[in-house]
Amino acid sequence: MHIDTLIHARWIIPVEPSAVCYDYHSLAIHNGRIIDLLPTAEAEQKYQANTVERCLQHALIPGLINSHTHAAMTLMRGVADDLPLMEWLQQHIWPLEQRWMNAAYVKDGTDLAIAEMLRGGTTCFNDMYFFPEVVAQQAIQHGIRASVGLIMIDFPTVWADNSDMYLEKGLALHAEMRHQSLITTPFAPHAPYTVSDAPLQRIHTLANELELPVHMHVHETLHEINQQLQQTGQRPLQRLQKLGLINPAFIAVHMTQLKDSEIKQFADAGAHIVHCPESNLKLASGFCPVAKCLAAGINVALGTDGAASNNDLDMFGEMRMAALLGKGVSDDASAVPAMTALTMATLNGAKALGIDHETGSLRVGKAADVVAINLDTLEAQPIYDPISHLVYVASRQQVTDVWVAGKQLLKQRQLTTLNVDDLKQKVLLWQERLKGVA
Amino acid sequence: MHIDTLIHARWIIPVEPSAVCYDYHSLAIHNGRIIDLLPTAEAEQKYQANTVERCLQHALIPGLINSHTHAAMTLMRGVADDLPLMEWLQQHIWPLEQRWMNAAYVKDGTDLAIAEMLRGGTTCFNDMYFFPEVVAQQAIQHGIRASVGLIMIDFPTVWADNSDMYLEKGLALHAEMRHQSLITTPFAPHAPYTVSDAPLQRIHTLANELELPVHMHVHETLHEINQQLQQTGQRPLQRLQKLGLINPAFIAVHMTQLKDSEIKQFADAGAHIVHCPESNLKLASGFCPVAKCLAAGINVALGTDGAASNNDLDMFGEMRMAALLGKGVSDDASAVPAMTALTMATLNGAKALGIDHETGSLRVGKAADVVAINLDTLEAQPIYDPISHLVYVASRQQVTDVWVAGKQLLKQRQLTTLNVDDLKQKVLLWQERLKGVA
Repeated sequence: MHIDTLIHARWIIPVEPSAVCYDYHSLAIHNGRIIDLLPTAEAEQKYQANTVERCLQHALIPGLINSHTHAAMTLMRGVADDLPLMEWLQQHIWPLEQRWMNAAYVKDGTDLAIAEMLRGGTTCFNDMYFFPEVVAQQAIQHGIRASVGLIMIDFPTVWADNSDMYLEKGLALHAEMRHQSLITTPFAPHAPYTVSDAPLQRIHTLANELELPVHMHVHETLHEINQQLQQTGQRPLQRLQKLGLINPAFIAVHMTQLKDSEIKQFADAGAHIVHCPESNLKLASGFCPVAKCLAAGINVALGTDGAASNNDLDMFGEMRMAALLGKGVSDDASAVPAMTALTMATLNGAKALGIDHETGSLRVGKAADVVAINLDTLEAQPIYDPISHLVYVASRQQVTDVWVAGKQLLKQRQLTTLNVDDLKQKVLLWQERLKGVA
Repeated sequence: MHIDTLIHARWIIPVEPSAVCYDYHSLAIHNGRIIDLLPTAEAEQKYQANTVERCLQHALIPGLINSHTHAAMTLMRGVADDLPLMEWLQQHIWPLEQRWMNAAYVKDGTDLAIAEMLRGGTTCFNDMYFFPEVVAQQAIQHGIRASVGLIMIDFPTVWADNSDMYLEKGLALHAEMRHQSLITTPFAPHAPYTVSDAPLQRIHTLANELELPVHMHVHETLHEINQQLQQTGQRPLQRLQKLGLINPAFIAVHMTQLKDSEIKQFADAGAHIVHCPESNLKLASGFCPVAKCLAAGINVALGTDGAASNNDLDMFGEMRMAALLGKGVSDDASAVPAMTALTMATLNGAKALGIDHETGSLRVGKAADVVAINLDTLEAQPIYDPISHLVYVASRQQVTDVWVAGKQLLKQRQLTTLNVDDLKQKVLLWQERLKGVA
């Protein structure tokens, strides 16, 4: 049979089924989809491919899904560190955004984020930022999959004046993107403390009608809980529950402050958590009880958050941190094992974003979102278990090749749809501008 | 003036003085020592060098000091993960060591560790393992600085039958190494629960006489405390204090279980802590209260621990983890800032090991232990603060060049004293042997 692409690999870890690692297998790709996964010896008999890739020292995995980003904020990487959350936001991040954030800023910042993510094996990101139409356009242009949040926040920005305008522009983008295969458009109300009941009610109604997920920061800090208790008499989750938002389409980011009863309710509701361990540590926000949430049956995905509070978009780092921190926080060295961390960074992300029919594992029929990682480096020797090495040893620099929907976007570490030198020049200009104010 | 080496750099971060970053400066090296640090324009006038290195997109820092390793255990990288400490030790690590550990194993495992450490910017390591004479010999052969522990443990191993023999072999190694400029030999009694009073008393006496540090695992887990309370009626630190060991020559590794009164006593005694955040998380050992210890005035250094519980020897990863976890654990986003993490990984390590007159900062008169890190990667853009980037953004793959005592051991990512291909072949043989038992 004649097909587009055949990738031979030393190891293939499909994530579905779980905890499986195939030796000397191949992935057959046609029309952007995975059509077969079989031993290399059989694949060579069965298929003739236009492109044959030999990843003979590599592990193939499903593309990583970064389930919480503010991509354009990559332009503020390291602009202010080691500061308490409110000082960081009020004296650094917000003033810089007020001064500089516009469509051009979002375009260049998103390009930088996409380039960094692709080079690190991330094939899909779930974004929340202003000018989402620019984010969607850049994702399409560079070929990466994106879940582009239709942002909502009570206060005016350069992008929109009020909640009606946020919603109107969001819905227009949704309509424009509904036939783009790489793009989905969840609602993205910023947080319980920045979005009031009326817009949340409208979002709830529209999300049901349009069958869209709702992506929101929830229970990020104890400060948030205390402030909301004072203002509304309720913990944020309680309020969101009453508004009907806690359901299988809800994606709650952070969730560091959780009572056992809240974990149970959230699990029963079938809603999703995005864990951002590095951001939570860096801002001293608290610890998400990941092992407890997983044990309760909650689908927990992984995200980097913005590069201003991380300071990178490295899902290998985030997997490793989730596996390590999950053990420390639960006081159990067997908690969040390597396979769980890899699943959080792939399939669980796809489930949270409502796109697991399309991506998140190397299953026949899904889009060919695939990453090859070279495990032949000195630092990865010896190799007893490739799955352990992907989480505890490998770094994103070992990612050599990346495909999204069958299209190769990284080839032997070179991006095929972005010019790195041009991009670095543009970023340098923003650096000089922001430095003038910072 | 004619000198050996001149390194021109975009940034130089000398660590001493603290929080300083020089732009466009140069480091002058002669006879293995730093003889000057000055603006590049002046350096070009003042010095003629046999070797001129242009690190024009790089930060130069002092060599990283990995203050707690079991280097040879790198052969067990990833052999058993995600297991509770006692199951991990008793059912995996100890049986493998009993079956395979010998001089040849330690030689190849230490070579692998040295290669990994040099490629990651580590110029000195503080080791605790059997066959320390082999570790010292390999360190000298490859040119890396090492603090080679004279191990002591109550039970017999293939290296020694009893505490007299451990001590005798240790003292012989100390005598043999005392004129080796790259090697120091602290005593290394394994832990409170594996070394009884009599050998600890002898070590205390000898350490005083010979002016040697004492390197020991202390308060690693709550289990250790409880077991020792039951067996001796005392917390381990209390017992060590009575034995006279808690003094400015004492290096306590881990220290996850600490009362405020213990922190104060330890600070007053002028003793040192080595924090191993990744190992502590992976084995769910507990959290060292680093911010509290630093605030009390304790010198806190950083270590990776062995690669069997990490699973790498990456001091960039450890700096980042220390900075992030230190904030989370102290509930303070301003705790363990980037400059502190970098100092822990350099100068504080040198202080703990008693070699800060020789290394740990880029100060005129010290040995030229120097690392160049390329900050021109896409993932490191934009650059607002190079010190922040070293801790929160850079990875060890950005290390391009490494010097120890003025000798270049890594040149444009190539090791000059180790053959990577040969080494990988040797490691592969051990991998196959250990797999047969694991």
